[in-house]
Amino acid sequence: MTINIPELGKPRIVIVGGGFGGIELAKALRRADVQIVLLDKHNYHTFQPLLYQVATAGLEPDSIAFPLRKIFKNQGNLQFRMAEVTRIVPEKQSIQTNIGSLRYDYLVLATGSKTNCFGIESIEQNAMPMKSVPEALDLRSLILQHLETALETDDLKERESLMNIVVVGGGPTGVEMAGALGELKKHVLPADYPDLDLRQMNIHLIESGDALLGVMSPVSGQKAHEFLKKFGVNVWLDTFVTHYDGNTVTFKDGRTLSAKTLIWAAGVMADTVSGLAADSLARGQRIITDEFSRVKGYDNIFAIGDVAAMTSEKTPKGLPMLAPVAMQQGQLLAKNLQALLNDKPMRPFTYFDKGTMATVGRNRAVVESMGIKTQGFMAWFMWMAVHLMTLVGFRNKLVTLVNWTWSYFNYDRGIRLIIRPYYPNYTPNPDIPPQAQQTTAAIPAKV
Amino acid sequence: MTINIPELGKPRIVIVGGGFGGIELAKALRRADVQIVLLDKHNYHTFQPLLYQVATAGLEPDSIAFPLRKIFKNQGNLQFRMAEVTRIVPEKQSIQTNIGSLRYDYLVLATGSKTNCFGIESIEQNAMPMKSVPEALDLRSLILQHLETALETDDLKERESLMNIVVVGGGPTGVEMAGALGELKKHVLPADYPDLDLRQMNIHLIESGDALLGVMSPVSGQKAHEFLKKFGVNVWLDTFVTHYDGNTVTFKDGRTLSAKTLIWAAGVMADTVSGLAADSLARGQRIITDEFSRVKGYDNIFAIGDVAAMTSEKTPKGLPMLAPVAMQQGQLLAKNLQALLNDKPMRPFTYFDKGTMATVGRNRAVVESMGIKTQGFMAWFMWMAVHLMTLVGFRNKLVTLVNWTWSYFNYDRGIRLIIRPYYPNYTPNPDIPPQAQQTTAAIPAKV
Repeated sequence: MTINIPELGKPRIVIVGGGFGGIELAKALRRADVQIVLLDKHNYHTFQPLLYQVATAGLEPDSIAFPLRKIFKNQGNLQFRMAEVTRIVPEKQSIQTNIGSLRYDYLVLATGSKTNCFGIESIEQNAMPMKSVPEALDLRSLILQHLETALETDDLKERESLMNIVVVGGGPTGVEMAGALGELKKHVLPADYPDLDLRQMNIHLIESGDALLGVMSPVSGQKAHEFLKKFGVNVWLDTFVTHYDGNTVTFKDGRTLSAKTLIWAAGVMADTVSGLAADSLARGQRIITDEFSRVKGYDNIFAIGDVAAMTSEKTPKGLPMLAPVAMQQGQLLAKNLQALLNDKPMRPFTYFDKGTMATVGRNRAVVESMGIKTQGFMAWFMWMAVHLMTLVGFRNKLVTLVNWTWSYFNYDRGIRLIIRPYYPNYTPNPDIPPQAQQTTAAIPAKV
Repeated sequence: MTINIPELGKPRIVIVGGGFGGIELAKALRRADVQIVLLDKHNYHTFQPLLYQVATAGLEPDSIAFPLRKIFKNQGNLQFRMAEVTRIVPEKQSIQTNIGSLRYDYLVLATGSKTNCFGIESIEQNAMPMKSVPEALDLRSLILQHLETALETDDLKERESLMNIVVVGGGPTGVEMAGALGELKKHVLPADYPDLDLRQMNIHLIESGDALLGVMSPVSGQKAHEFLKKFGVNVWLDTFVTHYDGNTVTFKDGRTLSAKTLIWAAGVMADTVSGLAADSLARGQRIITDEFSRVKGYDNIFAIGDVAAMTSEKTPKGLPMLAPVAMQQGQLLAKNLQALLNDKPMRPFTYFDKGTMATVGRNRAVVESMGIKTQGFMAWFMWMAVHLMTLVGFRNKLVTLVNWTWSYFNYDRGIRLIIRPYYPNYTPNPDIPPQAQQTTAAIPAKV
């Protein structure tokens, strides 16, 4: 079966993935005389830098995600399909998806990255990832459900385990997540759970290296460490997690920790599509490209963003997996594809590093940008401004601003619903009609 | 196992259900020298009158739901537990729940109502109900998924069936739902789905009686009918649905209609808890109470709101199942319980009817209140004001106002994410770790 898209006799550019890279590329091609087909497994773009706020009850999922059809509703040369690409068939210039196959003239892979548990099976099975909106919602539900359950336990050890949260990975995602959890514990939960002794709740941030925020300078890492301590977060450096059974975290040196929630933010890997030659792939499954984003060994297949390893003498391991890299590569590739179509020379990519930032709980952030290093309240203000400006859609900006202003003045988080109950061991009841299985009514209320 | 709540030596009032009646009662008891335990199967209060806006992409679920713990965070005499009550044991003054049993001195049932399919099994299995936040989200996902699938069908009949939506029930819920769908079809979907011929999409509103909005006066029903026609909704009066197999709707006179989405808003019934004597129950499982909300045959069990049939000479069938009835009963019961505890006489309930209103798509509503009947733009404005004022929580009011203002000026609905994919026939994959089953990654992307 072929996807239902007409042949227009124009060069067809198929873009796989509606993340930062994919949408920048598609937008920049809006005046090109080509046929663009954008595919994504979701019908929305996810603003991943703020996913941790969905998981910690700060923002609605709808504020940080944006319908892809809406982004492109006035772009006549683009068609969107909600589809998951399963295989590339380069010899046929075609891709296979769950809704059918599709021919391409030019293929751009912008599939991003996925959680990497480094092959530790117990972590793959029991840790909570946080790379998508449904995962963030599952995490929010799990944390809140555990607190409800903690109220009903007389076993002190069990109660601690239900309340404890371990975040693995001291990069920006782990630091922001731990900071937000610290804020939740300090300012929000005590009023919500007067019956629980929240001093028993411990938030641990585990990092295998010797400093937090390894991608930034030591001063930023140290400041982030300080800020986290103030929020009551326990930071463990030089510590490796080797096993997690859903209840006990085991470290390399044999020590253990009880926690029923473990958030894995320690690694990502490229979310590669199969079908490319083996020598096109680098370490961590990233797709090797030249400085024009062209995939090694192919003339008409390109890769941008997290999934691509644009290797050069200066960056033998490829560029960092960051939104600005993806966006800049998307913007340049739009120009280069048009150059290619007009037999003009392509321009090589150079990364313009705007800097890095991470927020640490209420009122605090660390920022490194254009030679400036700053930490604390002003950095936090800059962090907010940059994230608000980057959010897609005016409505989202406005709703997010309302929520942030509200939280700031009220020391509160508005969004604490368990709307997507999380049942690790949920199996459908054969006695209930299948239609009813997805509603809460049919799901056993006891976890 | 007993629920972990200490005995304080004070009279214990157990309230089952955090709907309009339950929270009004609990709030009005805030200064009483009693121990209140509030139970609900969700950890949030649902503002049911706006559920249809969640289902039609107008509002985030978090805007119309409010965490129960947050409502009562400063009320020292109340404890909340997320629990589902399974049985009342009057002879032991105790209730059984999924997290344990609980003793009561006074029990108040405020469990509300649930969808009633009048025993038609094919409808129970295949129709979409809309009484809770997860159900509204399922409905939103289903409608959007069907449109995505419609793009990939060459079978014209199949495509129509995917696009058609049938709403059964011409009361306020059905009318508001049909109006919102008409608005979606007219103003939002054409830009989102340029490849779909939306003239093929038909929205049908089916009513078994001879007029819409039977609870209101004929003029309101006629105006609503007119407004719906303008939005392109097909209204069928005097029409009974007898069967629905998920694809074909069959009517009593033998006619059929193809539609893969059927929304059932034709009936509700009391959501009664088992354990009461059979003669305490009236038609539709409602619990018979006297004018003090006391359940027939029991001294210390009360029922308020939709679940209660407060029968009197004037209202032999009980009062209408409306939020204002529940709220007023809750407020009076708080006073009467305190009177009872102080050996003072209780006051009988009188319902103060503030009127009824229903919105019909963009800019139109019908209102009947205090002897005034009005329809059109002013009525719509009144509808908005009343609903905004009634929403719990300032943040919710503000975010809802932002969304409504945005939609009004942009003819748009912001919230079109399929974050809770709806898979009627989804069965977990035994090869995938159970933890991963709830994420979209593990769910087959093809419906």
